[in-house]
Amino acid sequence: MFPAAIAGLCCLSVSATEKVDLMITDALVLTMDQDKTVYQNGTVVIRDNKILAVGDQSLEKHYQAQTTLDVDGDIVMPGLINTHTHVSMTVFRSLADDVPDRLHRYIFPLEAKLVSRDMVRIGANLGNLEMVKGGVTTYADMYYFEDEVAKTVDKIGMRAVLGESVIKFPVADAANADEGIQYALNFINAYKDHPRITPAFAPHAPYTNTTETLQKIAKLSLEKEVPVMIHLAESHREEEAIAERADGQSPVEYMHSIGALNKNLIGAHMILIDDKDIELVKQSDMGVAHNMSANIKSAKGVSPALKMYDQGVRIGLGTDGPMSGNTLSIIDEFNQVAKVHKLMNQDRSAMPPIKVIDMATMGAAKALHMEDSIGSLEVGKLADIIVVDTKAPNMVPIYNPYSALVYSANSGNVRHTIVDGKILMKDRKMLTVDEDAIRNEAIEFTHIVRDTVIKSGEIIQ
Amino acid sequence: MFPAAIAGLCCLSVSATEKVDLMITDALVLTMDQDKTVYQNGTVVIRDNKILAVGDQSLEKHYQAQTTLDVDGDIVMPGLINTHTHVSMTVFRSLADDVPDRLHRYIFPLEAKLVSRDMVRIGANLGNLEMVKGGVTTYADMYYFEDEVAKTVDKIGMRAVLGESVIKFPVADAANADEGIQYALNFINAYKDHPRITPAFAPHAPYTNTTETLQKIAKLSLEKEVPVMIHLAESHREEEAIAERADGQSPVEYMHSIGALNKNLIGAHMILIDDKDIELVKQSDMGVAHNMSANIKSAKGVSPALKMYDQGVRIGLGTDGPMSGNTLSIIDEFNQVAKVHKLMNQDRSAMPPIKVIDMATMGAAKALHMEDSIGSLEVGKLADIIVVDTKAPNMVPIYNPYSALVYSANSGNVRHTIVDGKILMKDRKMLTVDEDAIRNEAIEFTHIVRDTVIKSGEIIQ
Repeated sequence: MFPAAIAGLCCLSVSATEKVDLMITDALVLTMDQDKTVYQNGTVVIRDNKILAVGDQSLEKHYQAQTTLDVDGDIVMPGLINTHTHVSMTVFRSLADDVPDRLHRYIFPLEAKLVSRDMVRIGANLGNLEMVKGGVTTYADMYYFEDEVAKTVDKIGMRAVLGESVIKFPVADAANADEGIQYALNFINAYKDHPRITPAFAPHAPYTNTTETLQKIAKLSLEKEVPVMIHLAESHREEEAIAERADGQSPVEYMHSIGALNKNLIGAHMILIDDKDIELVKQSDMGVAHNMSANIKSAKGVSPALKMYDQGVRIGLGTDGPMSGNTLSIIDEFNQVAKVHKLMNQDRSAMPPIKVIDMATMGAAKALHMEDSIGSLEVGKLADIIVVDTKAPNMVPIYNPYSALVYSANSGNVRHTIVDGKILMKDRKMLTVDEDAIRNEAIEFTHIVRDTVIKSGEIIQ
Repeated sequence: MFPAAIAGLCCLSVSATEKVDLMITDALVLTMDQDKTVYQNGTVVIRDNKILAVGDQSLEKHYQAQTTLDVDGDIVMPGLINTHTHVSMTVFRSLADDVPDRLHRYIFPLEAKLVSRDMVRIGANLGNLEMVKGGVTTYADMYYFEDEVAKTVDKIGMRAVLGESVIKFPVADAANADEGIQYALNFINAYKDHPRITPAFAPHAPYTNTTETLQKIAKLSLEKEVPVMIHLAESHREEEAIAERADGQSPVEYMHSIGALNKNLIGAHMILIDDKDIELVKQSDMGVAHNMSANIKSAKGVSPALKMYDQGVRIGLGTDGPMSGNTLSIIDEFNQVAKVHKLMNQDRSAMPPIKVIDMATMGAAKALHMEDSIGSLEVGKLADIIVVDTKAPNMVPIYNPYSALVYSANSGNVRHTIVDGKILMKDRKMLTVDEDAIRNEAIEFTHIVRDTVIKSGEIIQ
């Protein structure tokens, strides 16, 4: 009868809706919360850098969003978390992949020649790009010149835990472990308050550092309240060296005995551990990074990751560095994590997809002690979110979204990546960095690698 | 001095070049020929449906191509061959993935209700699409209504070996094994001379057919000169049933003893075999389909595929059906094939990338006895060729192209797919079929699945 008045009512009603920055609609939302709540035709509402609401379609009418992403039924889930990598090593990827005793014969000598601020920046830019395009929103890194990595993370807009390496022999940014610790302290002081970057110590491994260094770092990490990342229980070489150093103790027992196994520690690999070690891991409340793809590529074995997960250990998935993994995308781990644990357990129901996705999101957030802010889509958490295509032929049909993600998806199926409420990739186009420039700089660097170590025959191609 | 005359010379020279249909230039060509010849900045020349020339850049000036694909340094290699699948089962993908005794408790009953001409066509269209987009140019299929699959293969332009199933209980297109054989014969007679389709028999497995049926098929296959595809040495259930039927013989020994192990046979899985079995396989000159991803997902074990390959057995890679694999892309197998064999052999140098790529191309061509026409880029062979992106962040850098393909690539990195000299996919766009229509029809069919078996609780999601 009075269209103008009705329109007025309508507009009043609209103006009464709450203004928000971003709303994702028509989504198959996997929240990965405690109850593993799933919303068909769901909605996620974001203000600033946080999740303001998550639920079904009825949420839509309460908000007026500056940007709306109608994802047409695609999967919306927490951003993936890569709990262990060496991102800058992308520039060495596909070099000398399958040679024995590779770390000591090839990688350390290669790094002695080629690691530099430039190399670290160029490699990190390439790796960040790969991760954002593969749906990784947070990663944990161990390398040199981590202040350079930090600059690249800041620029692209990702979240990261960045650990400055400490090792007993001379490396590119430190002549010895004490210099490494000092480098790390400077880095930690500079980045302690960064909203998306957590600086950390990264002693390379127990056997490549002295007991004194490991104890010093453990003490400093508790004072500074920063994480310590370390390669732990990874190889027989390490196991033998530590047994010799510490009266036959396992690497985990040794770390415990010297007071270095605590809630700040994140152990990568953890392959060679027994039930006694797992008990120590649980008591310490430390985190674990499970790197299936890298571990089986090197034939080192399979971590009892499923057992640790089932016992409540803080455990997430990692790719390891790109000379090991070789990709940085956590989606590329899914298939292998699910299937190799089934094979090892001789049980097709072992490691079902929902556990794999949990390890890639909440499990990983717990491993980094960041579960209060990331890892699931819940009100008040940081808005780190990815959208996965459900229409690519390999993803059709979706009776079970966890199965589809674990057994069918590849990193190219990620459509959008959002970190801290900001869209970093939209429809596979990068919005915060120049993809071509990053690729070209990386390819340029490969010429240096070829001229330095390949032509001389020092490293096999 | 005389620019016009020089221009004239130039043009004479151009008109003297040979006219061809398609030329691929600036390619990193992996020929996969006997010597594994690689051309940096290479060229592949195609006339009609065959490779006319392959070599370095100097070839270019001799040909005038109707279409030129300058691939800017991307990898050009033989199309991938999927030696074992059940393509139409895409419509069931992600259903009841991890339940025990799945074949007998879920899959056979599901198929009894839902397999139809429509289902086979819809599923095959979706699977074909996924394979072309993942770089598969030829596949070997075992299912029902294979004449429907044949029509889809013909339309999209792929190459395939299509095996009509024979099984001792009633199925959608036959009441018993004899009817299955008759269905297969009619199909074989109809498609015997198709340029891209090889019709075949597909007895499901030794334990799901009688000795008489297996012998009848073996005899008919030799008369008709068509392949026989079978699931062989796959499960303990099969092993026990055959041991009981045949005086404790292994499935391979049994097939040999009844005269069914011959050059026409292609055995899928071949997990539970010993050295004696491998010897029989070699003597018979049969082919083997190695389906790593499906086999470890079902926790059935790991086939001694590397041993067979090293001993010269005709062996290629397969995905198995999409309820098993779950993808149809051979690229998705690479990582798992390489790494799980390393793990099982406790040797990081076992199953190097070049062997994986060989098994996916020439090995697979040999398994299908098609090595004279496909599997490598050599003069006179059929032009089944794929182009793989080397600029995606996960593919940079490429020091070793085999490593990059095996450890880094995913199916989304395939840029172009060419079969029989015809471009089926260009820059990821399908040229011969309507991708949206195929996807929509598949999604439509999932409603029938939900209404028929999911809502009733007959199958778990």
